[in-house]
Amino acid sequence: MSWNSFGRVFRFTTWGESHGPALGAVVDGCPPGLDLAEGDIQPWLDARKPGQNKFTTQRKEPDQVRILSGVFEGLTTGTPISLMIENTDQRSKDYSEISQAYRPGHADYAYDAKYGLRDYRGGGRSSARETAARVAAGAVARLVIPEVRILAYVAEIGGDAIDPECFDVDEIGKNPFWCPDPAAAMRWEALVDDARKAGSSLGAVVECVASGVPAGWGAPIYAKLDADLAAGMMGINAVKGVEIGDGFGAARLSGEQNADPMRPSVGGEPGNGPRFEANHAGGIAGGISTGQPVVCRVAFKPTSSILTPVPSITRDGEATEVRTKGRHDPCVGIRGTPVVEAMMALVLADHKLLHRAQCG
Amino acid sequence: MSWNSFGRVFRFTTWGESHGPALGAVVDGCPPGLDLAEGDIQPWLDARKPGQNKFTTQRKEPDQVRILSGVFEGLTTGTPISLMIENTDQRSKDYSEISQAYRPGHADYAYDAKYGLRDYRGGGRSSARETAARVAAGAVARLVIPEVRILAYVAEIGGDAIDPECFDVDEIGKNPFWCPDPAAAMRWEALVDDARKAGSSLGAVVECVASGVPAGWGAPIYAKLDADLAAGMMGINAVKGVEIGDGFGAARLSGEQNADPMRPSVGGEPGNGPRFEANHAGGIAGGISTGQPVVCRVAFKPTSSILTPVPSITRDGEATEVRTKGRHDPCVGIRGTPVVEAMMALVLADHKLLHRAQCG
Amino acid sequence: MSWNSFGRVFRFTTWGESHGPALGAVVDGCPPGLDLAEGDIQPWLDARKPGQNKFTTQRKEPDQVRILSGVFEGLTTGTPISLMIENTDQRSKDYSEISQAYRPGHADYAYDAKYGLRDYRGGGRSSARETAARVAAGAVARLVIPEVRILAYVAEIGGDAIDPECFDVDEIGKNPFWCPDPAAAMRWEALVDDARKAGSSLGAVVECVASGVPAGWGAPIYAKLDADLAAGMMGINAVKGVEIGDGFGAARLSGEQNADPMRPSVGGEPGNGPRFEANHAGGIAGGISTGQPVVCRVAFKPTSSILTPVPSITRDGEATEVRTKGRHDPCVGIRGTPVVEAMMALVLADHKLLHRAQCG
Amino acid sequence: MSWNSFGRVFRFTTWGESHGPALGAVVDGCPPGLDLAEGDIQPWLDARKPGQNKFTTQRKEPDQVRILSGVFEGLTTGTPISLMIENTDQRSKDYSEISQAYRPGHADYAYDAKYGLRDYRGGGRSSARETAARVAAGAVARLVIPEVRILAYVAEIGGDAIDPECFDVDEIGKNPFWCPDPAAAMRWEALVDDARKAGSSLGAVVECVASGVPAGWGAPIYAKLDADLAAGMMGINAVKGVEIGDGFGAARLSGEQNADPMRPSVGGEPGNGPRFEANHAGGIAGGISTGQPVVCRVAFKPTSSILTPVPSITRDGEATEVRTKGRHDPCVGIRGTPVVEAMMALVLADHKLLHRAQCG
Repeated sequence: MSWNSFGRVFRFTTWGESHGPALGAVVDGCPPGLDLAEGDIQPWLDARKPGQNKFTTQRKEPDQVRILSGVFEGLTTGTPISLMIENTDQRSKDYSEISQAYRPGHADYAYDAKYGLRDYRGGGRSSARETAARVAAGAVARLVIPEVRILAYVAEIGGDAIDPECFDVDEIGKNPFWCPDPAAAMRWEALVDDARKAGSSLGAVVECVASGVPAGWGAPIYAKLDADLAAGMMGINAVKGVEIGDGFGAARLSGEQNADPMRPSVGGEPGNGPRFEANHAGGIAGGISTGQPVVCRVAFKPTSSILTPVPSITRDGEATEVRTKGRHDPCVGIRGTPVVEAMMALVLADHKLLHRAQCG
Repeated sequence: MSWNSFGRVFRFTTWGESHGPALGAVVDGCPPGLDLAEGDIQPWLDARKPGQNKFTTQRKEPDQVRILSGVFEGLTTGTPISLMIENTDQRSKDYSEISQAYRPGHADYAYDAKYGLRDYRGGGRSSARETAARVAAGAVARLVIPEVRILAYVAEIGGDAIDPECFDVDEIGKNPFWCPDPAAAMRWEALVDDARKAGSSLGAVVECVASGVPAGWGAPIYAKLDADLAAGMMGINAVKGVEIGDGFGAARLSGEQNADPMRPSVGGEPGNGPRFEANHAGGIAGGISTGQPVVCRVAFKPTSSILTPVPSITRDGEATEVRTKGRHDPCVGIRGTPVVEAMMALVLADHKLLHRAQCG
Repeated sequence: MSWNSFGRVFRFTTWGESHGPALGAVVDGCPPGLDLAEGDIQPWLDARKPGQNKFTTQRKEPDQVRILSGVFEGLTTGTPISLMIENTDQRSKDYSEISQAYRPGHADYAYDAKYGLRDYRGGGRSSARETAARVAAGAVARLVIPEVRILAYVAEIGGDAIDPECFDVDEIGKNPFWCPDPAAAMRWEALVDDARKAGSSLGAVVECVASGVPAGWGAPIYAKLDADLAAGMMGINAVKGVEIGDGFGAARLSGEQNADPMRPSVGGEPGNGPRFEANHAGGIAGGISTGQPVVCRVAFKPTSSILTPVPSITRDGEATEVRTKGRHDPCVGIRGTPVVEAMMALVLADHKLLHRAQCG
Repeated sequence: MSWNSFGRVFRFTTWGESHGPALGAVVDGCPPGLDLAEGDIQPWLDARKPGQNKFTTQRKEPDQVRILSGVFEGLTTGTPISLMIENTDQRSKDYSEISQAYRPGHADYAYDAKYGLRDYRGGGRSSARETAARVAAGAVARLVIPEVRILAYVAEIGGDAIDPECFDVDEIGKNPFWCPDPAAAMRWEALVDDARKAGSSLGAVVECVASGVPAGWGAPIYAKLDADLAAGMMGINAVKGVEIGDGFGAARLSGEQNADPMRPSVGGEPGNGPRFEANHAGGIAGGISTGQPVVCRVAFKPTSSILTPVPSITRDGEATEVRTKGRHDPCVGIRGTPVVEAMMALVLADHKLLHRAQCG
């Protein structure tokens, strides 16, 4: 019910603004007895961390996480896990311009319309810095679902897609784009660099695959696994679309093409669950996992912060133009990739526990 | 938190199966003093009702709604509104085949894997008959947001899209496809009829536009208006993708192309809110409405129930083939259109009240 | 979060008014595979049913329950269980008086102040008829916790308490007061009858003991088992106080007196959990069950509906007097006893599942 | 739904343990535009602060609160308000004894039974230090309900009650017991000091009155104002009983005695709401406020930590004896008084917003 909490049983709440002293997450409902130290969380934050290369924002944030509660002698205790990340690189710039004008594509106007005021420093609560808190919470969620492997990667930047034939999982960590196709990674280097130099920005599509999810997670009707994934992904900054399995592509298939035929499991033992011959469904049927990999695709719009002036208005309703200077990601989808993974982990951990609640 | 409830403040719970005695919705949190009678709900159910032409299932259900509580002397009282629809055309067929084998693309296997048993009659709880309850609840939601006009229509069937140039709102109700483009409606007639005769099925894309939504509905971070819309739409049977505004198309734009420039409002009075020169964002920024029309697109997969045999397995894990006989929609997206409208209304009504709670 | 729902994982929603066509409950989150038929629910409704003797209201309601969903071939399916009870004895009396004046002690004025209107027929939603829906839901909850035995009884009427020395569990069902002390039952017969004849009413205290609750149900901090019990019991019509274990009596004890010493369990096997030598705590410490019986006491005020005229005002604010005619319980605590049992079952079932979610 | 969150619309989540680095609260759903600085919160924490006199624990904690988010330029922004209090006086004592044996009356055994492990340092999460976080959150809640005045005081210690005839509101802050009766305060000084010296402890009853609550807050059926108050109060450490209005006393009254007669309001203007001639109901009818003062009474058990040895068992199930050394409150109800006030504020703030959501 809360505005800033997500999840049903495994549930987290985030807080903090772009330029406040810190931000954080409180993870509630975590099972007890799991090994957890700051070192289990930090690598995931490092993956999302800004300033690591010229294709991301140059804001330098160590994003060092501290565990303030919920862990005792290296084990989770079942009580809330408070995670805090201090902001260290809030540059002392002059915000007078942004405080009086609305940046097009940003939440500035919507926040003012809703609340009557806004923390304009770096976007305040609407900044994607909040996603650091999700990534930290997601690291805890991963411990709850050791049976699941989650892999996200960028499948498309600026309309230039990877070639599925060239998919190489080992390539993903070798380039600054989480790109599994080395040729695409080379092309994107030029593409993103050009956009960056031009003060422009690009959109991206991120795919995420979770393997090892057993059949049976998720639940009708308003706790469907795909509905919760859709909410979780759409809630990430700059996301404008979510697909499960074939997504919009499925709308162009016939029933025969879209069917996922089932065959007896390889071992052939009765009762073992099927071997599926396709996965158009993306591992979810009727809102419940089928045992196939859970697959979703997430569309990120181009970063709204661009150097090109865009017509806008001031808080007083006067015409103006806004150029968004400052340190921005030319393609926010890139750093969105670890966030997509985190949300996948958070949704799955919640549904594992929810399933256990009802079905034992 | 519940499995079968949706919404935060304006909240509804649905119940019922395809072949049980009845199904229904309990609407909780409705403001008092609204005019409500069964006649306010029935037209929306009639729009979704099966058996109205050869392009939808031939199951005949009057879908007559009864209000059992929450209304007194024609006005809502603020207490729960219980809505019930009796099932009348549960054909007494032999379910022995479907009870022992899993229909590919359906939730049969997932339900069995989760619960260890399932009501196989017509899909039980996983049947799209549940959407009748949402449509009824949605009719109540509409009363809460009289300032909003909601319009959904089919934009694509089987990959054949409408021509935006030919969009005519008055056409939507004149053909059996909720199609705003008369030429497309003609083409679809052949397309769907062919699929129906071939025992096949087709997917569809439904678009939904809500005008009149004021700026300020929705809220960071996990109660974003777009995230709730995504959850609501993805939870509709057969839906595999959701887009807000330009959706996946935005991922192919540059920041300049995707910007929605703002100009002073027509009257020009200061403080009036902007006039936007584009709506790539679909009326939502930072999870909060901007005052522009809220636009979403929803992808429906082709109906999984097809006459063509598909390889499958039995409950015992043996190989088999399944042909889904019975009365089915050749394109479930068509009848999904009123459901999409209802979910839009339900999400917006909830967010109107939620906004009022916090911001007065 | 909803107004008319209770529970976290095992969750139910009730609807309906005193003089509407029906009332009911939707039970969500029930584990699958439990044997459930209407015959499992009816006895509990019969225990609460009005009109069974001269000590309760003379309204005749069969309170026949129907299961409309969630059960297939005699087993729960894991989907929502819709329970409906038709109202059959809404006497067609003239409500003009009550519609214009506020009955003191009733919710009439508060409802009008909140909603601006109210269903005044028999108290509408504020009537204790709603508790029939809880009792029905509670019958389902009992199936979830077969390890638990719940026993409620009246411990005091009009200030006249049972003698704990004379407690005989077998007496409880043998008198119309759920009284475990036969001598007290005899005294109460005169007491309640006198009140009834005088057009007056009496308060009561109900005690409820749940045995067999294992250690570990409940959770810090805002899902404490005792906090949820307090909410559940205080929400029953006419309840004004709730105690766990010694309750207010504990406030008069010293730490030594209030201690519940622990001894090794009878078998003496290490790790077996303690044998407690007292149960001042009422089976709950830190919000979590200890394995001892869970004990709570619930205070019911005297029925507000009395024949003696009480000064009041009309809807227009004019002075008037109200005598509440009609068919009323002279001591509403008596029929509250099965409701207390039901709430205990509902809270415990929820916490069993919640515990399983987090701790496996 | 969460374990460590409370409230529906105005909602807070607490985290932290007795001997961890810090504890805190995240307040979500707070209206924007309220003046808030740390100085608005600190006085309430100071009122609850330990170590202020010999009648409370000698642990020295400054309980200095920091606001980490949700406030900008001195105003709440509508986004989550993160409040943190560092622990500074976690004495580095040897916990080996308490780590292996269960303190009777404490949550030690229950936590171990639930989670399989526990943070035994000072009781970990089960310590009443958590209530500092509630008091901080409560200070924010007070800003949401400026129309309400909340007053809590100790009405009884160790069975020795105040004399209502001697009630003097100005006395409450003048003695270390929040006692409104100067004669009782004198008696309690000896009483509590004796208990302290004897290594014993005493229970207490705290009363809380909220004036200025308008009619109409609260809601049927499972969001009743009294039910939420009962949950909130029962969830405070050491609380074993909650009464609204006359509470258990009402169970000993006749309907005539318990009636709260209504008269036209003083000014006599029609429609003004009644003037009540009594307040047995404690300001709540049918779960909704009536405009009278909201009154509740809360029973605190004697502190379980006493120097007298009590039989207990070790984690291995062996017999042992436990004396709880360390720094403890001889009467935990005293410092519970500001916590009761805070919970009253938190419940009322939530219901004000919830009412506004539904009824505008």
